[in-house]
Amino acid sequence: MTSTFRHIALIGKYHTPAAGAPSAAAGQALQRIAAYVRSLGCEVILDTQSAIYAGLSDYPSMDVGGLGKHCDLGLVVGGDGTMLGVGRHLARYGTPLVGINQGRLGFVTDIALEDFEASIAPILQGEYEEDERPLMQARVMREDACVFEAQAMNDVVVNRGSTSGMVELRVEVGGRFVSNQRADGLIVATPTGSTAYALSAGGPMLHPSTPAWVMVPIAPHNLSNRPIVLSDAQEVMIEVAGGRDISANFDMQSLASLQHGDRILVTRADHSVHFLHPKGWNYFATLRKKLGWNEGGS
Amino acid sequence: MTSTFRHIALIGKYHTPAAGAPSAAAGQALQRIAAYVRSLGCEVILDTQSAIYAGLSDYPSMDVGGLGKHCDLGLVVGGDGTMLGVGRHLARYGTPLVGINQGRLGFVTDIALEDFEASIAPILQGEYEEDERPLMQARVMREDACVFEAQAMNDVVVNRGSTSGMVELRVEVGGRFVSNQRADGLIVATPTGSTAYALSAGGPMLHPSTPAWVMVPIAPHNLSNRPIVLSDAQEVMIEVAGGRDISANFDMQSLASLQHGDRILVTRADHSVHFLHPKGWNYFATLRKKLGWNEGGS
Amino acid sequence: MTSTFRHIALIGKYHTPAAGAPSAAAGQALQRIAAYVRSLGCEVILDTQSAIYAGLSDYPSMDVGGLGKHCDLGLVVGGDGTMLGVGRHLARYGTPLVGINQGRLGFVTDIALEDFEASIAPILQGEYEEDERPLMQARVMREDACVFEAQAMNDVVVNRGSTSGMVELRVEVGGRFVSNQRADGLIVATPTGSTAYALSAGGPMLHPSTPAWVMVPIAPHNLSNRPIVLSDAQEVMIEVAGGRDISANFDMQSLASLQHGDRILVTRADHSVHFLHPKGWNYFATLRKKLGWNEGGS
Amino acid sequence: MTSTFRHIALIGKYHTPAAGAPSAAAGQALQRIAAYVRSLGCEVILDTQSAIYAGLSDYPSMDVGGLGKHCDLGLVVGGDGTMLGVGRHLARYGTPLVGINQGRLGFVTDIALEDFEASIAPILQGEYEEDERPLMQARVMREDACVFEAQAMNDVVVNRGSTSGMVELRVEVGGRFVSNQRADGLIVATPTGSTAYALSAGGPMLHPSTPAWVMVPIAPHNLSNRPIVLSDAQEVMIEVAGGRDISANFDMQSLASLQHGDRILVTRADHSVHFLHPKGWNYFATLRKKLGWNEGGS
Repeated sequence: MTSTFRHIALIGKYHTPAAGAPSAAAGQALQRIAAYVRSLGCEVILDTQSAIYAGLSDYPSMDVGGLGKHCDLGLVVGGDGTMLGVGRHLARYGTPLVGINQGRLGFVTDIALEDFEASIAPILQGEYEEDERPLMQARVMREDACVFEAQAMNDVVVNRGSTSGMVELRVEVGGRFVSNQRADGLIVATPTGSTAYALSAGGPMLHPSTPAWVMVPIAPHNLSNRPIVLSDAQEVMIEVAGGRDISANFDMQSLASLQHGDRILVTRADHSVHFLHPKGWNYFATLRKKLGWNEGGS
Repeated sequence: MTSTFRHIALIGKYHTPAAGAPSAAAGQALQRIAAYVRSLGCEVILDTQSAIYAGLSDYPSMDVGGLGKHCDLGLVVGGDGTMLGVGRHLARYGTPLVGINQGRLGFVTDIALEDFEASIAPILQGEYEEDERPLMQARVMREDACVFEAQAMNDVVVNRGSTSGMVELRVEVGGRFVSNQRADGLIVATPTGSTAYALSAGGPMLHPSTPAWVMVPIAPHNLSNRPIVLSDAQEVMIEVAGGRDISANFDMQSLASLQHGDRILVTRADHSVHFLHPKGWNYFATLRKKLGWNEGGS
Repeated sequence: MTSTFRHIALIGKYHTPAAGAPSAAAGQALQRIAAYVRSLGCEVILDTQSAIYAGLSDYPSMDVGGLGKHCDLGLVVGGDGTMLGVGRHLARYGTPLVGINQGRLGFVTDIALEDFEASIAPILQGEYEEDERPLMQARVMREDACVFEAQAMNDVVVNRGSTSGMVELRVEVGGRFVSNQRADGLIVATPTGSTAYALSAGGPMLHPSTPAWVMVPIAPHNLSNRPIVLSDAQEVMIEVAGGRDISANFDMQSLASLQHGDRILVTRADHSVHFLHPKGWNYFATLRKKLGWNEGGS
Repeated sequence: MTSTFRHIALIGKYHTPAAGAPSAAAGQALQRIAAYVRSLGCEVILDTQSAIYAGLSDYPSMDVGGLGKHCDLGLVVGGDGTMLGVGRHLARYGTPLVGINQGRLGFVTDIALEDFEASIAPILQGEYEEDERPLMQARVMREDACVFEAQAMNDVVVNRGSTSGMVELRVEVGGRFVSNQRADGLIVATPTGSTAYALSAGGPMLHPSTPAWVMVPIAPHNLSNRPIVLSDAQEVMIEVAGGRDISANFDMQSLASLQHGDRILVTRADHSVHFLHPKGWNYFATLRKKLGWNEGGS
């Protein structure tokens, strides 16, 4: 068998230092996937932390930067949160990613561990659906300094604390004033994030092929303050104009205690993330399954 | 002129110790109202703090408890927030309240300071519309102890902090399990509170004559989790089942750092608050004005 | 076995003249239920049409009026729509009703045909949960004449046709002007109807113990036009003020071609409908099942 | 003065044969605008019907096709509805349009008649903001035949009649099955239409620079059926799968009595419409004004 992809990164639940070790089940899953992929004639390289936690000493390992430079495909074992974290880190290298899920299938991790072999083999041979997702570059500016910066695949959220009243946010898009918003907070979501928190807050779903963000107010004071879909080519600026105990959250990477005058800037990142799905995958089938639309009538 | 009400409490912006002194304009407003009401032959008694801050030494003053026992009507000078605060404190005495507003008229403070005389004189003579509003009694129970208790005229809110994920709340009504909710938070609002925060979060308006609360989820994870209107005769219990940095807010009186297992209990208080409005007032006219429904077509 | 209820009406899918015959399966279901109830020592009386269609000549039959006068309990075989139709017709007699469902369980028909015996026997002996539902009395007035009148258990809907623009409706409650609404239409729903069409249009759920209607605009032009919950003690009046091809629908009983100036009047009917459910039934469990809230977290 | 645009079409309220004559005021407006534009050295050509109705015999006139071929700018006098109608007819010629409004300013007609001169003169000299709006090409297919075809600037709506129940619609996008929808109807709106009917039905606003449609269900039966934003590069297909008295409406151009199996196809038209606005115009300022967001906090 000839594989299109030869050097395969294998990445488990992506660890922040605070996170614990993956479960034994997760280790077994990595072992099983690694062995299968090697059996297809591909090189398997683990990310360093997954290798240590899973005790997989039979395979070379690298840090994420090394994986990005060396590998031509990444297999991610975990849920949507893991996949988005890995996606943010590998985006700059252009490494396409495939998600294998041990639990309930997600929006972007749609291969079940139990029979992953049947899905993975064709993908490695070049049979797949490609699914490109944009990434946000987000910063918090305090006067002229950038005090926090991160990328986000889902959303940028500016919101209030648990005992404080509304925030007041001044929004500009492409340098033009949009509105002053009084609300619990404001979400700027990618198409990927449009089915996450933004959907709970009343936003629409954005098909991933739409080059757009959606800006969704959370519990807005003004009843005519509705979600707005914006081209992702323009910078969104959110200035903290009032309120207490406010934070900025970029895919849940947070900066708390924002000050009045702080500005959150959101632009489209230079790189996108490329997910690969089994042949026949389509976005709408995932929506139907995740949102409980049955075929006979939703 | 014979007045129905003889002993009139006059109360300014209701002060928590942290709040500053009222403005000079507020002092002048109290002076002007006191003089007018005395000229109609009524006794005027100020609340102690308003008297001090406004420098009104010509009138007797009492603390709120004294006002409640001695007076048969309260004139409240301020906005809706002030009115609700005074209402909570005087409810047990049954003292009816009239709101005089120096700024933009509110939902329950609908007499403008500039021409208050034309509205107040008939009310003192017994010409008015009565408007009874229920009050919530709310407690936080930790194991068997009550760790926080307060009354609320608007709402009881349990919600998350600014950088934490969703809360998980287990809800019972009248001792029966309703649902486990994953959301930013949950609001239980009175009819009075239904036009405040609960409306921003997507709840319906409740006419004040409806003996009901409305329970409104804030940005719920489950898309079929919708507002529910409940009889106010049954206890609502909200148990903290998951999440971090959670607080309970009873009309913005807050207890932060709730623990898993804490239970928030909401029942109808024994007493209601009685607002008096000028003859001809009606609730729908207030809605139209506050929500911008014009007569020609909303 | 001693039965609390002795004279049992058995009613199948409630027929308008236009509706076809019930299926053979429906006939077998009626036969099976009739035999079982008789075996418990109760008298079984069928409604005339069900008896004819199902070919059940072993049992006496009566029209609905006769059933209402003679029987002390009604067993209704069908879905929620059937139950609501029977409920409207028997309300004046006070006959309590039990729903047996051959298909997917409904909001008010919650006994499955397959094992109905285990649920029915205790109910006949007096072991049940009672569930009282109010009924609307609705009329269309043209000048001084009533041109259409019917009762509704779910809702009164005034709406536009398929190719016409918005309707304009002038609404009064208790003789007081509420608003002029421009929308696709307007729904006034009972608690029972609050989980039907009104929920789709964005209304809240009303617990059946709430003595209230909810008025829900359909696609309103004004973004601050939100659902309002109203005491069911006051008359709701909806006047057709503009638009074309407008109809009034009382539980889908329709009067088309309304004219400008026509007034739809909605009051609480003198009688309620009494549903009986198996011991342990509660409303919230039904909501959880019908709306897909799982126990582990909605 | 040198004008960038030399041949100016002047078009009043766009007439379908059924519409009546414009008012005298409209005739005077056309006369005044024609005289002013001629005084700037431009050729003024009226559309034939406006010329007849307004009695303007001093100017040449042409039908819309002639105007499209001959003129390099169109001045449209009327509201948004008029502008959208003219836009649909002139799109194929690429003629840019300017809207002059006699009444309340619209989303796309933002020059007030009373002082139009100050806005028009700079535009004729080439000082303007350009605003390109996509157009939908929509057809109804019955088996293999196209039975109705029209363009739409706002929306394509498939919906039910006034006394019928829900429609059932089968939706595909780009040839892929999306969902079966049970609802009052379904809207597919352009960015221009996203602030019209689709907004009332709960859809988001789409900035005109977004190359997308939004599909918004009207009162959907399934509570997780939410608006979806779609790339405008793919065909949307809506098949009538159930229901009665259903119609298709393309900017209110209607085909009633759709049959089961009928398919409504929506693609992006080959041509767009170009609106010109006074220098300094921006979309968000229009939103703020039309939706009542005040500068101090919405």
